[in-house]
Amino acid sequence: MTMYDIIEKKKNKLTLTKEEISFFVNGYINKKIPDYQVASLLMAIVLNGMDSQEVSDLTLAMANSGDKIKFNFSTVDKHSTGGVGDKTTLIVLPIVASLGCKVAKMSGKGLGFTGGTIDKLEAIKGFKVQLTDEEFIKQINNIGVALISQTKNIAPADKKIYALRDVTATVDSIPLIASSIMSKKIASGSSNLVLDVKVGSGAFMKDIESAKMLASTMVEIGKNAKINTLAIISNMNQPLGNNIGNILEIIEAIDVLNNKGPLDLQNISIELATYMVALYKNIDYKVAKNQVIDVLENNQALNKFYEFINYQGGKLENISFNPKYEYKVYAKKEGYITKMNTEEIGKIASLLGAGRMTKDDVIDYEAGIILNKKINDYVKINDLLATLYTNKEINLIDKYLNAIEITDRQIENKTILGVIK
Amino acid sequence: MTMYDIIEKKKNKLTLTKEEISFFVNGYINKKIPDYQVASLLMAIVLNGMDSQEVSDLTLAMANSGDKIKFNFSTVDKHSTGGVGDKTTLIVLPIVASLGCKVAKMSGKGLGFTGGTIDKLEAIKGFKVQLTDEEFIKQINNIGVALISQTKNIAPADKKIYALRDVTATVDSIPLIASSIMSKKIASGSSNLVLDVKVGSGAFMKDIESAKMLASTMVEIGKNAKINTLAIISNMNQPLGNNIGNILEIIEAIDVLNNKGPLDLQNISIELATYMVALYKNIDYKVAKNQVIDVLENNQALNKFYEFINYQGGKLENISFNPKYEYKVYAKKEGYITKMNTEEIGKIASLLGAGRMTKDDVIDYEAGIILNKKINDYVKINDLLATLYTNKEINLIDKYLNAIEITDRQIENKTILGVIK
Repeated sequence: MTMYDIIEKKKNKLTLTKEEISFFVNGYINKKIPDYQVASLLMAIVLNGMDSQEVSDLTLAMANSGDKIKFNFSTVDKHSTGGVGDKTTLIVLPIVASLGCKVAKMSGKGLGFTGGTIDKLEAIKGFKVQLTDEEFIKQINNIGVALISQTKNIAPADKKIYALRDVTATVDSIPLIASSIMSKKIASGSSNLVLDVKVGSGAFMKDIESAKMLASTMVEIGKNAKINTLAIISNMNQPLGNNIGNILEIIEAIDVLNNKGPLDLQNISIELATYMVALYKNIDYKVAKNQVIDVLENNQALNKFYEFINYQGGKLENISFNPKYEYKVYAKKEGYITKMNTEEIGKIASLLGAGRMTKDDVIDYEAGIILNKKINDYVKINDLLATLYTNKEINLIDKYLNAIEITDRQIENKTILGVIK
Repeated sequence: MTMYDIIEKKKNKLTLTKEEISFFVNGYINKKIPDYQVASLLMAIVLNGMDSQEVSDLTLAMANSGDKIKFNFSTVDKHSTGGVGDKTTLIVLPIVASLGCKVAKMSGKGLGFTGGTIDKLEAIKGFKVQLTDEEFIKQINNIGVALISQTKNIAPADKKIYALRDVTATVDSIPLIASSIMSKKIASGSSNLVLDVKVGSGAFMKDIESAKMLASTMVEIGKNAKINTLAIISNMNQPLGNNIGNILEIIEAIDVLNNKGPLDLQNISIELATYMVALYKNIDYKVAKNQVIDVLENNQALNKFYEFINYQGGKLENISFNPKYEYKVYAKKEGYITKMNTEEIGKIASLLGAGRMTKDDVIDYEAGIILNKKINDYVKINDLLATLYTNKEINLIDKYLNAIEITDRQIENKTILGVIK
């Protein structure tokens, strides 16, 4: 078996065997196969695709390339494909934990226009994103939930292949995206998994068909790996909720747990939590949904959030929000907001200091945006559209205005676009 | 401009601009762009193609990457895409030179199943394949023809890209093959060029459509570069002529110049020489053909051959052919020869010692094959099919028999399959 022949096969649209896929993944990790051969194969995969068996084989080969975590209890996890203003993890974890579902979650940092849960939690002074194995397990047993930064050697083949995809324009391939996400989920020992596949101007998937394809590919991989997996497809044509930025998103997550958050964020949080509970407890959607609403209404979810933050060392009482600069964005046109270039808005938040444009950028936890108007809102000239918060002098008002389209009619706008089981 | 965006464009089947193509070629040569990005782009080109403007731009970018040779007189060149038993260069050069056409040719060595003209000439003791610039020009002015090994820094970008294609399964792409061949021809200063695109079991192009596409792509590149270019498509479903191997091919070339060579080899040599003369002198095909036949009949071409070899130091009188081993291959079946796996026969010749399987192999000039029966010949059991000559004990009789198919009917078999102007 040679890497040359494997590339040749995929170039000719033939199906790779499990052995060929393992040969390539292991050879790459073991430095027996050079970057340029893998780059050539990745482009052939992007253009000629992979069938579901190949995708499952690739996922398992990458999942098996490093540490594999096993829990002696059942767990539930969620994963979002990345969006702007997405703080649902902070909301759904305490909901499901307060209902007795165990959550052993590992999260990542944000990059580019998307945020990362670890960054938001690090905005809370004292919060420890690294725990020993013993601390991690003990915390889950005691309070039902723990969330740490990914420090283990989880799916190193995925990490190496992802880094190469990132510089060879081979990122946007459903087989490669699906196997990358699922390899980490399989290696980190999830037994139940709810995926949130974002679609729209602020997501990696720009159209609903691609999002559905990605969702069903991941659900199939999950099932093949004996993980109860379900995916929702959700709208990312506008930021989720009204707040973007790390401290701002912590505040908004607490608002939702207090039953006073924005509707779109509340809806999707309830939906995700409901499916997580339904999968974990193997109960009906409706039964699970009632339980979720109960713990929101009786504040058990909110209390679980405080318990969780406190247990991991976070001092919420010390949180402060006093950014030096506020830039107010006013409408220059009257009408309905019909488009928000959400990727652009995510980039503006990053530029304000809320995120990283490169891996080495330092985050300003206070930086961010509060949106006053979103899609289908009617605005008059000089109405406040948004406020940009930052600790550096950077005027992005025109950039924000350019990301907004105002017309004379409303458009269809749903938060949840589908469910793939 | 970034290499990432260039890969992204080609991945999305968009057309690259001249500037983007130069950026990639120059960046690669200057080591500013890594192998893995070029590998990814090459696979995207293989799968998504290039239009004729892109191919011309790529060719020129590679041609301009190193030395560019200029003659202060008009020249004529030929190029074959590679085959088995192809000694036409040795025949057509003296023909056209004896008719007053100037030939300043640079040739390569053979690799794999194909031979190279330089190897054949090196089989003649004393023949100098390297000349100084002054010697080269002086020889052309004195006798009209000189042939040397490519030593200049001709199209180094092509050389580097070709080496990468060779290990990333991105060789078989018409835009890449055409630009690779033509970049060298443009840089080496040809003003008239006849291409011999081989098609069949012993050629890189296996079907006539691909061969025609390659031929017309190269003809168009040539014309865009102001080179009078024409291509013939010729049959490589059987070796050309009866002799394969370096000394054996020298002998057979002399036979053709003596008007006693095999018909297929004679036909294609006359055809190639005719087009070379027609292009160089800008005269009709028929007029040129009569001139070619004249110099063959009156021995002027043969004498030019001796003059050329002698001028470059070759001692033809010292040539000897006494290989230690002869393996005779007899037919085991009666009928017509309908198929010869010509690539396999080329490999057998290489294994006997006539060629290189790797770049470092040393050639045995006496090794080779004389074919007694070719396509459409009727054979009886125990008729002699071929004799394998070598200086090492290696029995490839069964391998040869396996490369031959004998059935009860003849097939259509033409030497020249088309002309692309």
